[in-house]
Amino acid sequence: MVNEKNSAEMHQPMKLFYAPHTCALASHIALEEAGADYAAIRVDFGAEEQRKSGYLKINPRGLVPALVTNQGVLTETPAILTFVAQSFPDARLAPLNDPFSFAKIQSFNSYLCSTVHIAHAHRMRGYRWADDQAAIEAMRRKVPQSVGDCFSAIEQNMFAGPWVMGDVYTICDPYLFTLAQWLEADGVDISKFPKIEEHRLRTSQRPGVAKVLAMETRTT
Amino acid sequence: MVNEKNSAEMHQPMKLFYAPHTCALASHIALEEAGADYAAIRVDFGAEEQRKSGYLKINPRGLVPALVTNQGVLTETPAILTFVAQSFPDARLAPLNDPFSFAKIQSFNSYLCSTVHIAHAHRMRGYRWADDQAAIEAMRRKVPQSVGDCFSAIEQNMFAGPWVMGDVYTICDPYLFTLAQWLEADGVDISKFPKIEEHRLRTSQRPGVAKVLAMETRTT
Repeated sequence: MVNEKNSAEMHQPMKLFYAPHTCALASHIALEEAGADYAAIRVDFGAEEQRKSGYLKINPRGLVPALVTNQGVLTETPAILTFVAQSFPDARLAPLNDPFSFAKIQSFNSYLCSTVHIAHAHRMRGYRWADDQAAIEAMRRKVPQSVGDCFSAIEQNMFAGPWVMGDVYTICDPYLFTLAQWLEADGVDISKFPKIEEHRLRTSQRPGVAKVLAMETRTT
Repeated sequence: MVNEKNSAEMHQPMKLFYAPHTCALASHIALEEAGADYAAIRVDFGAEEQRKSGYLKINPRGLVPALVTNQGVLTETPAILTFVAQSFPDARLAPLNDPFSFAKIQSFNSYLCSTVHIAHAHRMRGYRWADDQAAIEAMRRKVPQSVGDCFSAIEQNMFAGPWVMGDVYTICDPYLFTLAQWLEADGVDISKFPKIEEHRLRTSQRPGVAKVLAMETRTT
């Protein structure tokens, strides 16, 4: 019986826990474009479901995305994107056989994760880094500049075009697209970054991306 | 002549640009333990060398680490660590043939980069996220709590022991060691985290780590 159960579990589709308007979108797009067998499960942030015991068993940090696989749970967008690219090599979402090119992808995604997303997070999540309300307001005020500076650096120094790494679409692209979706709310004028603006439009028109966007924006 | 020059360049050792007391230590240790042919080049932060044109040509963001390879420059600690692990497979610094185990390593290092290092950065680099001096002071005050919370999460949920991932030392270990070196200055009592305290001592006693520490702390 144990073996049968394990065998059945081995064939469970992966589960991506996500919430709309979060960085989980990048992983959602990657799974979709990789042709993975997965279920996308919405976590109701409005009801603070991410802080309840059911979800905390999946991700003790109470954040999305979390990808439940048959081997265990993965968190952190750069890791999930890497896992998808390596698990579905036919989708060619990363240069898997050249350590330098692969590291360039890790570098870009690490920058998005640790600098761009963090600059953005100071708009709504300042309480992570200060208790004082005036300080939280001061952080919020700087977001248009700090996020704008990040996108300026990408536009000038990191973006090969037409995709992030050049001619080939990779796991950098859905991640950049995801963070670029937040620019208006962050008070940044995307038209100052024509390459990124064109990239956002181009990415949104990919069939897999359009499908995921339609699904995430659907009311339930 | 061109070919000869290219051929000569192909045999240049890698160059790691670092500064003492920065996260570049993790990459430095990884290169040393991998047996890489590399030169470690100190960037003089006291003289603000990282903001001068010579260094900005290497890394336009003016940060360390930067790893100059024959294929180009790599930045961002998680990317450099991945590159070292993949380039020197005999050093067995990561499980290279199992996407899930590899992603667990990326996940841990991404957490260190985007959450732990960021919490720490609010002690000295608050100006990145607010212009107001009172806000910068408010950020500084919260660092003992926010960094402490990160290490508590690692101790409780992320650390298999005796190494981060369990019995095998990986590229997670020098990175955790590097950030744990900052705990006293961040106002965090490491003795509250016995696994991490033991890990810090254990890691410091590895011959490659001891060699790098001696080199980075040497006055020049």
